[in-house]
Amino acid sequence: MTLNERIEKALADYLPGKDCLEKRLIDSMEYSLLAGGKRIRPLLVLEFCQLCGGSIEDAVPFACAVEMIHTYSLIHDDLPCMDNDDFRRGKPSNHKVYGEDTALLAGDALQALAFKTATSNITQENAYNTARAVNNLAEYCGANGMVGGQIIDLENEGKSSGIDILKKMDKKKTAAIIKSACEMGCIVAGAGDEDIKRARVFGESIGIAFQIQDDILDVTADQSKLGKPVGSDKENEKSTYVSLLGLEECKSLVESLTAKAIDSLSGFKGDSSALKELALSLSNREY
Amino acid sequence: MTLNERIEKALADYLPGKDCLEKRLIDSMEYSLLAGGKRIRPLLVLEFCQLCGGSIEDAVPFACAVEMIHTYSLIHDDLPCMDNDDFRRGKPSNHKVYGEDTALLAGDALQALAFKTATSNITQENAYNTARAVNNLAEYCGANGMVGGQIIDLENEGKSSGIDILKKMDKKKTAAIIKSACEMGCIVAGAGDEDIKRARVFGESIGIAFQIQDDILDVTADQSKLGKPVGSDKENEKSTYVSLLGLEECKSLVESLTAKAIDSLSGFKGDSSALKELALSLSNREY
Repeated sequence: MTLNERIEKALADYLPGKDCLEKRLIDSMEYSLLAGGKRIRPLLVLEFCQLCGGSIEDAVPFACAVEMIHTYSLIHDDLPCMDNDDFRRGKPSNHKVYGEDTALLAGDALQALAFKTATSNITQENAYNTARAVNNLAEYCGANGMVGGQIIDLENEGKSSGIDILKKMDKKKTAAIIKSACEMGCIVAGAGDEDIKRARVFGESIGIAFQIQDDILDVTADQSKLGKPVGSDKENEKSTYVSLLGLEECKSLVESLTAKAIDSLSGFKGDSSALKELALSLSNREY
Repeated sequence: MTLNERIEKALADYLPGKDCLEKRLIDSMEYSLLAGGKRIRPLLVLEFCQLCGGSIEDAVPFACAVEMIHTYSLIHDDLPCMDNDDFRRGKPSNHKVYGEDTALLAGDALQALAFKTATSNITQENAYNTARAVNNLAEYCGANGMVGGQIIDLENEGKSSGIDILKKMDKKKTAAIIKSACEMGCIVAGAGDEDIKRARVFGESIGIAFQIQDDILDVTADQSKLGKPVGSDKENEKSTYVSLLGLEECKSLVESLTAKAIDSLSGFKGDSSALKELALSLSNREY
């Protein structure tokens, strides 16, 4: 089984059974959680855990947890009171299929499921690292992390914000849980502070590069590959890296951030070639 | 300091600082989290922890966590796509003050803050019980617990559902996190399975009694004390315990459930008089 197959299977397994009055809710959670996607965040958990000498099996619950957080944030982001997006990954968004009320609750339940999943396999031996990983995820997905980034985004809607605000926003909105994925992989493996710090640099670098690449693709991508309308940032009068810095500067920023990420891997003792490849593939992605 | 004062202080302390771009989000979280309320759930965590020989200080993070979960659920419940309530505890509801988008995010961030708070004080010694308590809270607040109860509620809106559906719904919607509060208190104190089971019976009994009392008060209460309009269930054509069983039968059910809860306390070795009093005061409450 490839790592991606392992992740897909585990995500499906962690969803609650449907033989209950809550079937509609669980259908809605499943619709978004098993909608594919690149599974970058769970892969990062597994790869960093392996790099620090931990086992894939120990990392799987945390890999699934971070993907559940990511998925809930997409469902809530698409709601009419937020971005009001009708499509996500080429499919109708969750609330278009299940209604706003169910979509709201599916997001809420996915966040709870993330923390349930992360603590689904506690032993006396792994409890300390488990609790630390939970704390890490909760910190990076909350008010000073992912959700904090979303409020900064809201606050700056329709304003032409400068590059400083944009950087602060993306560090939280996009990079925070990517960083958490990298750090959790190390924590679960029992890595030391130095390695966790290296993982943080890697996560933050590819996280910001990822967002800049997103802005680039919004201008340059093939809509059929991207699965969402091209040019939506301009239409929404959003300040983006591209609108502020221009396309060429953005491409060179993605390159230098990717180089910084790859450089941070050199301090690890294990084989980091898979993570290097992942960083490169993200910087070259077309969707 | 009374237990209630201890809870109020800790809730305020666990909120993130406001000297940041996310100030509006944190204001919105604070607006609902520090809006008063009876703090029943956190009190249950503290009292059960004490009853099982644990310290108040060890229980405080979990007491705050369960109140954060409760608060986020109220914010999301009041949103226009849910119950569309303009008032909560006599004050404008969160989205009336901060807007739907910020209210949605404040709820999301409060759920994350709950799990961050629960894991804010990890040591090698308390990690195992901490991780178990996190798992308990995540289970009871998610798809098969509180949020599950909310979807059953949505599914049965406008239908005249029978008493069986109503019981299943309230067991999840209202009783689940009350039960979690009781069980977490025991878990944090390192109590055995038998005590945890007793706490579960107590929590479930007062949880359902609480909901029935809510339905009674919706018919009989003084609006100025209740802080929300009286008679709203009837107006929304909701099946309630009162509409299905009548007022007298409901009053007697509250009494017998309260007696069952108090009876479950007799198995504990410690002094459970505070919990007995709490159960009685809930069954006699007027708002």
